[in-house]
Amino acid sequence: MSKIKIDDLPVRDELRGKSPYGAPQLDVPVQLNTNENPYPLPEPLVARIAERVAEAARGLNRYPDRDAIELRTELAAYLTRTGGHRVGVENVWAANGSNEVLQQLLQTFGGPGRTAIGFEPSYSMHALIARGTGTGWISGPRNEDFSIDVEAAVQAIAENAPDVVFVVSPNNPTGTAVEASTVLALYEAAQAAKPSMVVVDEAYVEFSHRDSLLPLLEGRPHLVISRTMSKAFGAAGLRLGYLAAHPAVVDAVQLVRLPYHLSAVTQATALAALEHTDTLLGYVEQLKAERDRLVTELRALGCEVTESDANFVQFGRFPDPHEAWQKILDRGVLVRDNGVPGWLRVTAGTPEENDAFLDAVRELMKEQER
Amino acid sequence: MSKIKIDDLPVRDELRGKSPYGAPQLDVPVQLNTNENPYPLPEPLVARIAERVAEAARGLNRYPDRDAIELRTELAAYLTRTGGHRVGVENVWAANGSNEVLQQLLQTFGGPGRTAIGFEPSYSMHALIARGTGTGWISGPRNEDFSIDVEAAVQAIAENAPDVVFVVSPNNPTGTAVEASTVLALYEAAQAAKPSMVVVDEAYVEFSHRDSLLPLLEGRPHLVISRTMSKAFGAAGLRLGYLAAHPAVVDAVQLVRLPYHLSAVTQATALAALEHTDTLLGYVEQLKAERDRLVTELRALGCEVTESDANFVQFGRFPDPHEAWQKILDRGVLVRDNGVPGWLRVTAGTPEENDAFLDAVRELMKEQER
Repeated sequence: MSKIKIDDLPVRDELRGKSPYGAPQLDVPVQLNTNENPYPLPEPLVARIAERVAEAARGLNRYPDRDAIELRTELAAYLTRTGGHRVGVENVWAANGSNEVLQQLLQTFGGPGRTAIGFEPSYSMHALIARGTGTGWISGPRNEDFSIDVEAAVQAIAENAPDVVFVVSPNNPTGTAVEASTVLALYEAAQAAKPSMVVVDEAYVEFSHRDSLLPLLEGRPHLVISRTMSKAFGAAGLRLGYLAAHPAVVDAVQLVRLPYHLSAVTQATALAALEHTDTLLGYVEQLKAERDRLVTELRALGCEVTESDANFVQFGRFPDPHEAWQKILDRGVLVRDNGVPGWLRVTAGTPEENDAFLDAVRELMKEQER
Repeated sequence: MSKIKIDDLPVRDELRGKSPYGAPQLDVPVQLNTNENPYPLPEPLVARIAERVAEAARGLNRYPDRDAIELRTELAAYLTRTGGHRVGVENVWAANGSNEVLQQLLQTFGGPGRTAIGFEPSYSMHALIARGTGTGWISGPRNEDFSIDVEAAVQAIAENAPDVVFVVSPNNPTGTAVEASTVLALYEAAQAAKPSMVVVDEAYVEFSHRDSLLPLLEGRPHLVISRTMSKAFGAAGLRLGYLAAHPAVVDAVQLVRLPYHLSAVTQATALAALEHTDTLLGYVEQLKAERDRLVTELRALGCEVTESDANFVQFGRFPDPHEAWQKILDRGVLVRDNGVPGWLRVTAGTPEENDAFLDAVRELMKEQER
């Protein structure tokens, strides 16, 4: 019995021979591989979380608010204050990480017999969630500099008529922000081809030099902006993703969401974090400065660096990125090899962590010169 | 723009005209409609939750343990201690409510081009999660007394060769426990027909007069037992479901689970609750006694009552169950109309809540006699 493996079970054909998604979790002094925020939550916020969770725990025998009204109201207020566009509770939906938000969107607008397109390299979970929901996946093109090739993208949309178009801005793993005009061109192409839904994944937008694309929602009921509290709010462990869209989209995802999907403790913790928004956005400013320093110093060391609007930096080029990854790891610093030929990705950490990383790259570059 | 409704969006055809799942959430003094545990968590447990969540919140900027090793270890210990069968961390998987566990199972073993069967009336989410994952749904038969008609069920499995067989024990909304011999017969039929996976949903098993079916896992790699902390642990608001199965099944669901699906605060809260297992199981004993009292007193009032092994009771029969539901509601008690012709379902509450419910039914029955 113990010799039975996954492929001996009646699993779906497309899962055979596959491995679970996830970065290696290695015990290394400096972990700059998963775009986490390096700053722990401040103690007053930890205390407030304990307080709000205790309050929620007193009613934990009851199901949570299925519609998460208080949380969605506060997320809407945050978006309105920082995103340059007024949204209300009826425009916002929340789930266990933006991955679950995206899964719900694909269960609603994608699924069997339908397709989604993304412009790669990009966030690899989009393709995996497509597979998990039975949605066909189309890999669209990018320019050499990792910006979206608008003409080619519009053509790919016209030819394939996908049901869902994914745009990631700033893009992961390249850090590239997307122009509003690009999103508008893709949206127009998507409406002409089908019409289909356009999902702009703004997981890292708080770190960007540019404004959120939220104002584009006005008059565009097939546009969705997805967000997360994992990065700017320093709460990757909380698993709280959300979206802003036309109220009909929020109604539609409720047809596929599992009832009571968002626990009372998650809602309470997220609400506590939102009370401390200003402090947390202060850390974002520090990280943006560190990100810019990484770009400058990596270039000074002779690396190529992709322009970054996120809390991470794509650097290269290495003839053998995996070997470079290993050599940086040997010096106690874990970065990410996302499989983009020639490139690696480093998350902006604390100044000390970034110094350790830059030292490791300095030694690596010297070695390579020899 | 504001006039746009769900059906104006490019949603999947099978979602058109549908409404979200969920019991009406009405503000009524006595709520006995969603099988919640009426006993709030004891204050020492609330304090321990606050303590463990604060600890987790200090590392909330990092992703949670993707594999939830500590939590799965403690769940395995609980099952081993109470379920009559030794399981280890490698046999257990956890997710946001047993709904997510079941969704992951269908994404792995069901999905487009595949089918699942359930014996209805039963937990209606099974059919809805099948729809959400693109799995075809087959409605199997039951006997008049709501037990599974083994011969008919075996025949339905042989004829349809479903990929997943759902058995709910105790069954919701009828309260009916399933014999081990029935599960064995269905398992054999399912192996002969395909082979397919058999999922036994034991959400309410702690309230049963009978033992868990956990020991049936021995030597049956296609059997899965699903569980939840919502009912016996009094933690519906926590959203913590889990399963026990062969380690290969646990490996397989990790191919479809969203990475980091289980937040650090959920893991911390569940671990705190597991520390207080004995206290919480004490409440279960009180609820079993109250459930038995409901059965006895409802019968004394002239109702038909289905034998119950759960924390709820199915009672009837009413020529118009919705009218009876409304009349009970008019007396301040909310029960559930699950759409089973002639029957309603009441959750066992506190002695006071059950008295209020029995008073309402007494008046209703008198009215009907007139």
